[in-house]
Amino acid sequence: MAVKLIGAWPSHYAMRARMALNLKSVDYEYQEEDFMNKSELLLKSNPVYKKVPVLIHDDKSICESMIIVSYIDEVWTDGPSLLPSDPHERAVARFWAHYVDDKWLPALVEMAKAQTDEAKAEATEKVLEGLKHFEEAFEKCSKGKPFFNGENIGYLDVAIGCYMGAIKMLELMMGGFKLLNEDKTPLLAAWAERFCSSEAVKGVIPEAERLLELAKARSAPQPAH
Amino acid sequence: MAVKLIGAWPSHYAMRARMALNLKSVDYEYQEEDFMNKSELLLKSNPVYKKVPVLIHDDKSICESMIIVSYIDEVWTDGPSLLPSDPHERAVARFWAHYVDDKWLPALVEMAKAQTDEAKAEATEKVLEGLKHFEEAFEKCSKGKPFFNGENIGYLDVAIGCYMGAIKMLELMMGGFKLLNEDKTPLLAAWAERFCSSEAVKGVIPEAERLLELAKARSAPQPAH
Repeated sequence: MAVKLIGAWPSHYAMRARMALNLKSVDYEYQEEDFMNKSELLLKSNPVYKKVPVLIHDDKSICESMIIVSYIDEVWTDGPSLLPSDPHERAVARFWAHYVDDKWLPALVEMAKAQTDEAKAEATEKVLEGLKHFEEAFEKCSKGKPFFNGENIGYLDVAIGCYMGAIKMLELMMGGFKLLNEDKTPLLAAWAERFCSSEAVKGVIPEAERLLELAKARSAPQPAH
Repeated sequence: MAVKLIGAWPSHYAMRARMALNLKSVDYEYQEEDFMNKSELLLKSNPVYKKVPVLIHDDKSICESMIIVSYIDEVWTDGPSLLPSDPHERAVARFWAHYVDDKWLPALVEMAKAQTDEAKAEATEKVLEGLKHFEEAFEKCSKGKPFFNGENIGYLDVAIGCYMGAIKMLELMMGGFKLLNEDKTPLLAAWAERFCSSEAVKGVIPEAERLLELAKARSAPQPAH
């Protein structure tokens, strides 16, 4: 039962896979990918997208972060369930996980790349709107328990939670402005604290300072070839 | 166990939900939505996206087409399974369904809207590339059986198959050019025939002529208000 994950430390999608493997206590080999020089294994394992993460399990590859999380949940059934057992609750978790990548992530990216105050304010508004949605979703999904998934971290927790490093980086970029505000989204702010300090997550989400350093390096003018 | 679907006849996403309900022989009430005058029920049931399809089951709403298909599969377990039982095969079906909406649909839309020969040729190339991927995926997934899902139509069949009306419409627009070519993608062309003539699907996919009429009406100059 050889398990290998191809990832990259700043990839939020790869973080999801790492968290899910940790939650299920799966031993795995980790291969850090160099974006500038992609490995043969990555190109062979994900020929359509050529992107991380790729999970390789018994010589079969699984691509796309939330599909990997579902796969891990379905294969390692001994560990805690990552999706609720109720079909409607599963559908709700999948809906918000879809929203995260479809609507909320583009707003986060816009915010990080905004060149004008106006563009930044507009993107920030969208990010905050998403956080309000998550606050309401948390109340409904968690039913008073610590995580979206109930007693333990699950599918929707990792879908949203992988961006907690990015949120802290954006707060740092904005001189301490709180996106995750204890007054406006108190449940979510407390959830983020619990999430980031959990055993399966800490060590996976990079420090905000390190992410900021990378963002600055990427936006700096590149040397001519 | 009241079941209601809010859809719209030209919506590919709504077609997926209708096909899945048909495959499971679920009795349901159907509400045709008017895009120009959205119903209170739609706005209340899908407040984030305000889009069809929405499945309402026992007063709970489920949004996003492939999430609805998964929900139907998980609730009506008496009918044929829409996803394979093997976790890796499930992951492969989910991967290609994701690719359809993420990469292939945008190419179809580009093709339908292209204003220049160059843009049309470029988009057509992408659509054909997707069809080649599906041909290869069909060979692996079906293992010689009639559908991606094996003996019966399933998750990936409806994910791709809902666009068969659009493919025929594009062929009509191109004066008979065959996108689904028996020489280049023979397995897929034969699958499409089987799929479109199956009981659960016929009556759900609109005629190419009707789709073309709608596309022309939508691209015509609108009267001034």
